[in-house]
Amino acid sequence: MVNEERLNRMRQAMEAEELDALVLSLPENVLLLSGFWPMIGATTLVFPLHGNPVCIIPDCYESEASRSLWEAQTVYYRYGVLGAPCLAAAVRNGLAAIARGKAWERIGFEASFEVAAPSWNSAEFLLPAALTRELLNTVFDEGELIDASPLLQTQRLRKTAYEIDRLRTANEISRVGLETFEQLLEIGISGVELAAATEHDVMTLGTELCGAFRVRGFAQVAVGSEETSVGYRPNEVSTIRRLQHGDVALLELGVVADGYWADRTRVRVAGQPTDEQFKIFDTVRRAQEAAVAEIRPGVTGAQVDEAARSVIREAGFGEFFPHITGHGLGFRYHESSPILAPGCATTLEEGNFTSVEPGIYRGESGGFRIEDDVLVTKGGSEIFGPFPKRLVW
Amino acid sequence: MVNEERLNRMRQAMEAEELDALVLSLPENVLLLSGFWPMIGATTLVFPLHGNPVCIIPDCYESEASRSLWEAQTVYYRYGVLGAPCLAAAVRNGLAAIARGKAWERIGFEASFEVAAPSWNSAEFLLPAALTRELLNTVFDEGELIDASPLLQTQRLRKTAYEIDRLRTANEISRVGLETFEQLLEIGISGVELAAATEHDVMTLGTELCGAFRVRGFAQVAVGSEETSVGYRPNEVSTIRRLQHGDVALLELGVVADGYWADRTRVRVAGQPTDEQFKIFDTVRRAQEAAVAEIRPGVTGAQVDEAARSVIREAGFGEFFPHITGHGLGFRYHESSPILAPGCATTLEEGNFTSVEPGIYRGESGGFRIEDDVLVTKGGSEIFGPFPKRLVW
Repeated sequence: MVNEERLNRMRQAMEAEELDALVLSLPENVLLLSGFWPMIGATTLVFPLHGNPVCIIPDCYESEASRSLWEAQTVYYRYGVLGAPCLAAAVRNGLAAIARGKAWERIGFEASFEVAAPSWNSAEFLLPAALTRELLNTVFDEGELIDASPLLQTQRLRKTAYEIDRLRTANEISRVGLETFEQLLEIGISGVELAAATEHDVMTLGTELCGAFRVRGFAQVAVGSEETSVGYRPNEVSTIRRLQHGDVALLELGVVADGYWADRTRVRVAGQPTDEQFKIFDTVRRAQEAAVAEIRPGVTGAQVDEAARSVIREAGFGEFFPHITGHGLGFRYHESSPILAPGCATTLEEGNFTSVEPGIYRGESGGFRIEDDVLVTKGGSEIFGPFPKRLVW
Repeated sequence: MVNEERLNRMRQAMEAEELDALVLSLPENVLLLSGFWPMIGATTLVFPLHGNPVCIIPDCYESEASRSLWEAQTVYYRYGVLGAPCLAAAVRNGLAAIARGKAWERIGFEASFEVAAPSWNSAEFLLPAALTRELLNTVFDEGELIDASPLLQTQRLRKTAYEIDRLRTANEISRVGLETFEQLLEIGISGVELAAATEHDVMTLGTELCGAFRVRGFAQVAVGSEETSVGYRPNEVSTIRRLQHGDVALLELGVVADGYWADRTRVRVAGQPTDEQFKIFDTVRRAQEAAVAEIRPGVTGAQVDEAARSVIREAGFGEFFPHITGHGLGFRYHESSPILAPGCATTLEEGNFTSVEPGIYRGESGGFRIEDDVLVTKGGSEIFGPFPKRLVW
């Protein structure tokens, strides 16, 4: 199945910006326009305004490439074995052969990404920096290199039917992790144990679920009031601290399935919650549902934020909700737009995909957040991978 | 404890290249010169030739920074909450204040990294690209920006006592993963299950082992002759295919502990190996031990490679060992030097840290590789995190 809508829209956008071709090597952008999520980077996609895309790929990843590429022609080069050319030489030769006789005048490349999703081998990856720039300058010495990062970012905001299908899969798989977290949560278990078990099950039970081939979870579990609420912060380190009676455990879970992301949060209390913990949780839940209910084409990010924020304010917890209500995602764990936040006048449009994640971080009671990923549909919104919201079982 | 040796050596190297300061934001380089492994990037280190280093850090990560920074002064900026400045503005303001009155003429920055290790939140990270370049141009408008990537790479090759201590820890922790892999390996288990369990135990049992705080494993388990030997390749996808009698399982394991890496491989056969499998395994083991025995200051990468390769050639498997014998590592899973390979004339020196990983990939018998990480010592070499090499229990 080819993502024709994506290819057509991108060509329209390129035409508007008078770009003759894009040369891309960030895994997330190669995926966007070819269907192939590179294994470790080292893959370059040439996407011309007219004519067939060509993907330059290490030969050892032919099986992954051939099962997922849409219509791109392929140039394979030897990689990772004795006698293989150096990566730069392989890419330069591949590009030079593709560019020959094309007379492209304006070539878009990735200059200003600044944030990047990992490739499959999350431990390390290859990135376009000065060497890539130099290589592009050599190959396209008669053309002009244009930073296409803003164009790519804008085009990625509105998801196509093909991409929506895959984001649904990533979110379905994320439910596996939420389930494991809830089932294992008990007095005496540590944040590290909860995080590791969640990641374990995302990989073992998520691989091949809904046809996803390369699946990985990234879990952070903060435990107790000190880790969850004293100085709220966007990233936590799971520790060996063990849950005590009344402690909150907050799971932040990123899931990637064949390059498409989900971003979920659930929170639970070990043992019997206090009245205030029940009240805070209920407020967060109502705030999250109010924000989701507000989402539809034409509404601003500020309006959605206010739907959540007003619920929290009216419950008397306004000062304990220090962050935005949501952010775009899809080809990364976090994308730069849409943003659901006070003052954000950008309107949502059909095909946007955003997290909705209000929270209250309140001293001794602990930190509470609920997060789902929501698609903006023609008639309103749809939560992907629906999962119960409950403080205790 | 301050890594004085590293700071002194870097200042000598900067003096030789007439660099007045380095401005760094790749997590691996911030770690190298400050002791702090940033949480998600978003941290900038200014390391001047004369005077104190200054680290610009999101305020929410103060606890991680303060427990690990050596002597750097700190500038904290609000991050991740409503009202926080945008990252670029925060870094620009921080840098401008630091640069004021300094009259630095040559400022080194990261232009040509092309390969990067992830930050703690492996799901995503922030990188220096065109925006960083622009920002540096603005702040240092009277100085010259120099690509310091080659200098950093060279300096990183020779590890200091402080770094050696931490690499030992990462390798000790990697033993946990090797142990889990071996214990769980049996007929009927899948590559995905072995990989997930290995990563799980690295996180749960490795966190706080030898004082490491942020620990994560990345495991790939290839299973059976098709996944392990038909077209050898440097990265594998763990699948749901289950081990059958006589199948090989090959574990490739990366471990990161507070920013320092280990890279290990073990291989096992489910059930009773064939005579050829025993012979191949024994050859690989002898080849690996011969290479380790050859390692000492002054020997070339080619000599070490030949020590392994000749054992494999003499056993009649020469054509089935298609890759290099080893590569440098430490601040990343893979570093560009030293390289143990045919024709490599660069000599090893004390403090180099390299993998040693010969392999034989032989059709129906499957793929076999054994990998340990080895420090070049004054008198020879030392294997870190020693672990048995055995085909069956």
